[in-house]
Amino acid sequence: MLKIYHVPRTRSVRVIWLCEELGIPYEVESISFDPEFRASPEWRKMNPVGKVPVLTDGDLTMFESGAMVQYILDRYGNGKLQPAIGTPEHALYLQWSWFAEATFARPLGEIVSHGRAFAKTGVIPEVVAELQDRSHLCLQAIDQAVQNKDFLLGEFSAADIMMGYTVMLTEMLAPSDNCPNASAYWARLQERQACQKAIGYGLK
Amino acid sequence: MLKIYHVPRTRSVRVIWLCEELGIPYEVESISFDPEFRASPEWRKMNPVGKVPVLTDGDLTMFESGAMVQYILDRYGNGKLQPAIGTPEHALYLQWSWFAEATFARPLGEIVSHGRAFAKTGVIPEVVAELQDRSHLCLQAIDQAVQNKDFLLGEFSAADIMMGYTVMLTEMLAPSDNCPNASAYWARLQERQACQKAIGYGLK
Repeated sequence: MLKIYHVPRTRSVRVIWLCEELGIPYEVESISFDPEFRASPEWRKMNPVGKVPVLTDGDLTMFESGAMVQYILDRYGNGKLQPAIGTPEHALYLQWSWFAEATFARPLGEIVSHGRAFAKTGVIPEVVAELQDRSHLCLQAIDQAVQNKDFLLGEFSAADIMMGYTVMLTEMLAPSDNCPNASAYWARLQERQACQKAIGYGLK
Repeated sequence: MLKIYHVPRTRSVRVIWLCEELGIPYEVESISFDPEFRASPEWRKMNPVGKVPVLTDGDLTMFESGAMVQYILDRYGNGKLQPAIGTPEHALYLQWSWFAEATFARPLGEIVSHGRAFAKTGVIPEVVAELQDRSHLCLQAIDQAVQNKDFLLGEFSAADIMMGYTVMLTEMLAPSDNCPNASAYWARLQERQACQKAIGYGLK
């Protein structure tokens, strides 16, 4: 069975959300997000750079939430939540999935990384402001992309799971009220039970 | 036909490299990397946040190099350079492809972004050092991953194209001579004609 090593508010939210949307069985192991645990030899065997999440499936152990989402869809999804592979529609599904993490989540993740690295000496406001500016540019792109549709591809797909988590990070790290379409999109996503369950999983 | 909007040393290198490995036809349009061009309404229509590269294929216009690589493989690759979709081997192919960009290229890209944003006021050495440290941790993960094999999955795959570009960035932005397996891996990749052609494309 799929086993998701989970910490609330991290990228494991995407994996739980996907399993819930697909209605496939999975188990969750809640782990510590302490830097000491993530730097431990035990966890570095699961993820060589100490990040979260990790997924196991029988003998398979893997990291990178974007890769997990694609693997689960391809292996257990029966064609759901992604367009047919090799089509232009699938190209756009891939584009938004990658954009969500590689471009949009990058400055957001850096706000967290910078805060952690400079916790003792103090964060540098100019650095954080520049990262927030780049996050806003990405949010504007999403605002434009969902201007006339409910979800990125029209119908709901796993690209919205990838992006939904990133938009949630924006709310936490670089909030903006200048993107009404993106806000409405995020509100639509939060109406989904699978999204609610994933975000709430393990939260006290 | 595939058309790749290209700037030397950027992520379009991956797309040219892939097309060369597959032996499929493509054309290249060399574009400007000037911030003014990338912020122009003309280019923002191609990429809403002004990044490079962009790929077109008939009516399709897309961004994100990781998405392009997967689309080209799925549509034109005839099963080459990736394990069978939905298998645990494919999961690891996806893992390394995503790791290459979402985790490893992130601090490297941030060194560039920080340098650009703070060009006038001066880069902050502590910020750059922290980004280099994180890059090195990722390089060490690759050093370990290719300890006993030629390529990430044993045989050469498109994950090595994704990763090869990132390792090239490391050489430029956060060089390290403490990862001999990773250095040997990068040397093996550079022996490939497709890699040489892609890296050299458009360089004066």
